Amino acid sequence: MQHYEKIKLGNIKLLSGKILKSAQLVYKTYGKLNKNGSNVIILPTFYTGSHVRNEGFIGKNRAINPNKYFIVSINMFGNGLSSSPSNSTKSQYGSKFPTITLWDNIYCQHKLITEKLKIKNIALVTGWSMAGCQSYQWAAQYPDMVKAILPFCASSKTSTHNHVFLEGVKAALIADKNWKKGNYKKQPVEGLKAFGRVYAGWAFSQDFYREKLYKKLGYKNTEELLKDWANDHAKNWDANNLLSKLKTWQLNDI
Amino acid sequence: MQHYEKIKLGNIKLLSGKILKSAQLVYKTYGKLNKNGSNVIILPTFYTGSHVRNEGFIGKNRAINPNKYFIVSINMFGNGLSSSPSNSTKSQYGSKFPTITLWDNIYCQHKLITEKLKIKNIALVTGWSMAGCQSYQWAAQYPDMVKAILPFCASSKTSTHNHVFLEGVKAALIADKNWKKGNYKKQPVEGLKAFGRVYAGWAFSQDFYREKLYKKLGYKNTEELLKDWANDHAKNWDANNLLSKLKTWQLNDI
Repeated sequence: MQHYEKIKLGNIKLLSGKILKSAQLVYKTYGKLNKNGSNVIILPTFYTGSHVRNEGFIGKNRAINPNKYFIVSINMFGNGLSSSPSNSTKSQYGSKFPTITLWDNIYCQHKLITEKLKIKNIALVTGWSMAGCQSYQWAAQYPDMVKAILPFCASSKTSTHNHVFLEGVKAALIADKNWKKGNYKKQPVEGLKAFGRVYAGWAFSQDFYREKLYKKLGYKNTEELLKDWANDHAKNWDANNLLSKLKTWQLNDI
Repeated sequence: MQHYEKIKLGNIKLLSGKILKSAQLVYKTYGKLNKNGSNVIILPTFYTGSHVRNEGFIGKNRAINPNKYFIVSINMFGNGLSSSPSNSTKSQYGSKFPTITLWDNIYCQHKLITEKLKIKNIALVTGWSMAGCQSYQWAAQYPDMVKAILPFCASSKTSTHNHVFLEGVKAALIADKNWKKGNYKKQPVEGLKAFGRVYAGWAFSQDFYREKLYKKLGYKNTEELLKDWANDHAKNWDANNLLSKLKTWQLNDI
């Protein structure tokens, strides 16, 4: 994992009233804050994202130019870097990790932005999918700070169909006997692979498959794509972390 | 299971060149053949269908009136009544059951219709989903016999996206350790439930969920619907049978 920074937030009272113990956010910044502090872009992470995976958006000839903007790329709770089931203290480890909302994420991101980075104004919050949902949340929660949002492939409230799709991928994961209601010693690898295979059907559109756009992504056929998705979930993701973020997604509603 | 009839077809050479041993089709007829034999409707079964589940279409005030038509409702191979992994002879039992195409289904249905029932003309082949796919297959395979088809929610070739969706439900099922590559002693119940939960997201439209049409079906909320789908698959379906028909579906291509 490339270099990153961390803020330790102590015990955080969540929207639910429960306490997230020893909360931490992992983030990375790109570019420099200008003199009047008007060039801040916040880039939260998407469902299977991290600050590293956000780097596809950043570059001189990419969507966000770090020569012009001061970019704060912030890992969502549950992604294994910021506070997550997989890295929490014993009393909140794994299946004992509390439910986190997007409100909780943005409440803590706001602490990072204002208390540590001393930022007063945000030019833009943007992001894809759950990162886009966080854009809506930022604008609703701190309207005086956020000048603009650009959420893409995102919603301010998770739809019923979206909720049902998430119940499906969850069911595929927990069908693995090794899951043991979240108290696994080894990752439920078959369940994680199934999660990835089911998800791939939902991640792309009818047109994507009809027009064979997976070939443009470098896959010879759909089986190659499905295997890649299965392996990504099995190799890079912890089951409880995925389910923690999934719950956050289902609760998305401003 | 209500009364039904059966035709024993002996060993059938499949489109693949392999042999389906002691093939049988289970079917049920409704109404009477008229004098000039012009009132025959063939109603194949859908993916999780049977001649019993087809009865929702049949009735004096329903889509197909048995007072006017002679209806032949024919169970698809793999549904547990017609030849299936779960009811085959030892050498083709379970995971050893050969791959069946829609061509094979219609080839055998044609034998039933012509050799046993002595029918010469078919007024209509109709059906929902995979039953509709069989309508296309009937028309393509025996164009001189079939006067009309009315497939609904069906295609003459399974699309790539449809194929990927089916890979997803399959992955959810076989994530269950009890599946044992099809050589299970007890049904992989958790996998079957996951299969049903994943499937429910695909079975209905965006509008269905947005407009809460599940309430019109008698479900208070989506969780009730998901549980019902999970239980239907766990209680009424054999895992290898589901996967056999799934393969047939994926190979659908006239």
